[in-house]
Amino acid sequence: MASVVGSVRILGIDPGSQVTGFGVVDSVGNRTTVVEWGSIRLEGGHSDRLRSIFTALGRIVREYRPTEIAIERVFLSRNADSALKLGQARAAAICATFESNVPIYEYSARHIKKAVVGHGAAEKDQVQRMVQMILGVREAIAADAADALAAAICHANERAVRGTLQTVAEATQ
Amino acid sequence: MASVVGSVRILGIDPGSQVTGFGVVDSVGNRTTVVEWGSIRLEGGHSDRLRSIFTALGRIVREYRPTEIAIERVFLSRNADSALKLGQARAAAICATFESNVPIYEYSARHIKKAVVGHGAAEKDQVQRMVQMILGVREAIAADAADALAAAICHANERAVRGTLQTVAEATQ
Repeated sequence: MASVVGSVRILGIDPGSQVTGFGVVDSVGNRTTVVEWGSIRLEGGHSDRLRSIFTALGRIVREYRPTEIAIERVFLSRNADSALKLGQARAAAICATFESNVPIYEYSARHIKKAVVGHGAAEKDQVQRMVQMILGVREAIAADAADALAAAICHANERAVRGTLQTVAEATQ
Repeated sequence: MASVVGSVRILGIDPGSQVTGFGVVDSVGNRTTVVEWGSIRLEGGHSDRLRSIFTALGRIVREYRPTEIAIERVFLSRNADSALKLGQARAAAICATFESNVPIYEYSARHIKKAVVGHGAAEKDQVQRMVQMILGVREAIAADAADALAAAICHANERAVRGTLQTVAEATQ
């Protein structure tokens, strides 16, 4: 039988210009357990918001020491203003992780929803409920943190699949 | 007479997703002298580009120790994709300066062109030529570096005006 894929700690990030969600999970083989989650509320001008994301996520990376990071690929709205704000929030989040040199994996919102709920057009509350169920969390998880945890779960699944495929390939060599 | 405004070192940044320009000037009263300029060429995927901007500008901030930073406010194109890319590049540039805690000033492209060329609808090559002339640089300056220096010159002018206004206001108290 293929060997169990090693343990990884995944930080999921849901960047937003109002609130940026984060979630940390540990993943061993097919088992994913939650470590921490939360929301970073952003206030003030442009630079203040970027600084909040950059500082808070930098602290989270130093505290939880993830080995891999999962982040939502940006959905291109038709609105250039929101694309700009979202792009800035996302870049500040990514820059906050550079110091620790952790690999970053990107998934589309559709891909993440499919991994967590089973179909790519799931509503926000379905994602919240499924994330709670998968991680066995009884308390409510705010939408942004749930999206961040969903990205982390999606990446954990991808790893498990890729890991298995890899060990299977190695076994047949 | 109002006293001369103190010396400041201004880092101008022209963020772009292909090339990010930078320029450093020293400004004492109405006199602005150039210190350094250049372009950061960006290659690879999303994260690679952000990392390049973040790392290179971080190094520039540590090396030249600006006391103030001037950056172009983003022009909102109708294209959400370019707004997203530009927003990301801009945020990476801003994040690179957080470590040194230098105040950041934003100016619209129109405002910068007006300050350097005399009217807000100036072409790129007019900006390049005027930047060369103002700073007494004989060699050609690439467009992105010229835009960054233009932002720095614009800020130096604003400072001089604001500084004079302030000292005048103080004198009449």
